[in-house]
Amino acid sequence: MKVTALSGGVGGARFLRGLVALQAAGELDELTVVGNVGDDLEILGLHVSPDLDSVLYALAGLSDEERGWGRADETWNALESAGALGGDAWFRLGDRDIGLHLVRSQGLREGRPLSAVTAELARACGLGLTLLPATDDPLRTFLETPAGTFPFQTWFVGHGHRDEVDAVHYAGAPEATPAPGVIEAIEAADVLVLTPSNPYVSIHPILAVPAIREAVAARAVPCVAVSPLIGGKAVKGPADRMLARMAGGTAPADVAGCYAGLIDALVIDEADGDAARPDDVRIVVTQTLMRDDEARLRLAAAVLEAAGTPA
Amino acid sequence: MKVTALSGGVGGARFLRGLVALQAAGELDELTVVGNVGDDLEILGLHVSPDLDSVLYALAGLSDEERGWGRADETWNALESAGALGGDAWFRLGDRDIGLHLVRSQGLREGRPLSAVTAELARACGLGLTLLPATDDPLRTFLETPAGTFPFQTWFVGHGHRDEVDAVHYAGAPEATPAPGVIEAIEAADVLVLTPSNPYVSIHPILAVPAIREAVAARAVPCVAVSPLIGGKAVKGPADRMLARMAGGTAPADVAGCYAGLIDALVIDEADGDAARPDDVRIVVTQTLMRDDEARLRLAAAVLEAAGTPA
Repeated sequence: MKVTALSGGVGGARFLRGLVALQAAGELDELTVVGNVGDDLEILGLHVSPDLDSVLYALAGLSDEERGWGRADETWNALESAGALGGDAWFRLGDRDIGLHLVRSQGLREGRPLSAVTAELARACGLGLTLLPATDDPLRTFLETPAGTFPFQTWFVGHGHRDEVDAVHYAGAPEATPAPGVIEAIEAADVLVLTPSNPYVSIHPILAVPAIREAVAARAVPCVAVSPLIGGKAVKGPADRMLARMAGGTAPADVAGCYAGLIDALVIDEADGDAARPDDVRIVVTQTLMRDDEARLRLAAAVLEAAGTPA
Repeated sequence: MKVTALSGGVGGARFLRGLVALQAAGELDELTVVGNVGDDLEILGLHVSPDLDSVLYALAGLSDEERGWGRADETWNALESAGALGGDAWFRLGDRDIGLHLVRSQGLREGRPLSAVTAELARACGLGLTLLPATDDPLRTFLETPAGTFPFQTWFVGHGHRDEVDAVHYAGAPEATPAPGVIEAIEAADVLVLTPSNPYVSIHPILAVPAIREAVAARAVPCVAVSPLIGGKAVKGPADRMLARMAGGTAPADVAGCYAGLIDALVIDEADGDAARPDDVRIVVTQTLMRDDEARLRLAAAVLEAAGTPA
């Protein structure tokens, strides 16, 4: 069985560990992850792809579980030094993390596309899946807020995502073409999965690439989304506030509404079992909090089961 | 009194601390350092200027005294991470050091010249002197050896300067123009100093810029060199082997021969007092090993005294 997942960073990466565990158990053959690049940024001359890296670090066992982002056993001396010398230090880059950004940035500057550089990094990390950026073209998420319109990281990290969001734009998306392999992976999949990531800033930027949205809309196989909310609340981050303001609520119906025409089933937590459901999307109720390996494995299996393809 | 010094990295930087101490004591008014850029390199997408940085770190009190190069309290995680991901890891860059290279590289990529970026870094480090690269143009030192011709760092770090050197080339030097302020600082100086650095790979690359050599040759004030050898031996590095092979010896006469027509006095160590002396250059004998602040201060004062301008 082939699974292709569209994924954001931290929450998505955590979920993908369950799919990788299923793959290791022989329950699925090929796993392709299409990652969000809308929150990529250039800082200190480095090209940083936070969501691709969260996936990479999580699946390579390099991520810091406690902090929830970045690398384990991390130090912060390069950033401290750069800041003391007048460089930008507001975006927290650890030393080990910077090592990766240096290699990526050099590859990009030598003219290789992000997808090629990402494949090399994934190979160097020993990943057994295919990790693709949604696009090699510049695509950047902007948040429209009462305080102004901001690039994703300025709002998310710089402002601590305090400002309420009225609308989200994906600059460059209309002209963007999918990275090599993305459409093929969507068309070859037996199951499509939207990971439990923030719809607006993690999954929508991927779907904002016209050809990707069209390929998912034209799917001949089930597409299953996992709600990132538990009891109407985000486990972490601003997804619940964004849904409340932009979708009008945080019920399964509101989450499903973010993916209208694109999903066949939505996996939700037991805590949301009584909340408003969508009319046209099958709901599967389970425990979605990914507190350990077993929970992640169970959730991944539930997702494949929701697709009608029991693992 | 205004002093302008041409300097390489580690040994030169150590000597400059003595001049800075004299400046702090009010014994000299203005100090300008013209630094070697022949051993600059591009690695991991970073522009590294090892000699300028050695001066910066030494004078800002940031250098690692024990290791003899790089920064104190250093960690090596970015390089380890980059190496594990397929990046170049043969040139040892510490995390704090990388912080500086990120700021410099970003400045250069934004179109600012090396001299402007260096001035900003020196200001951020609180240096009270003017630190200028010899040139903003690309100038790179190449070593001709029996094993082939190599860029400086490939030979020095990559090969551990094992290969004997038959000749040294300064690629780009004939076309290079001095960085803004260099000629002015040479012409305005009351004393010119060549620090105790390796003549071939630290001082000659500076003098290889035609207008710099001409300005030093046309000086109206004394130019004093400090021999980097003690008892015919380098304190560290390959200066003695290079002199033996290319100049035919390691006596004061051989060191002075490296600066023919460019110096009026050569400060040597007591251990070299009996070795062959040059005919046309005044010799000043003192203790040149810079083991502590007092020794550095004394050597700096001896140099100014050698210029006939007692401190």
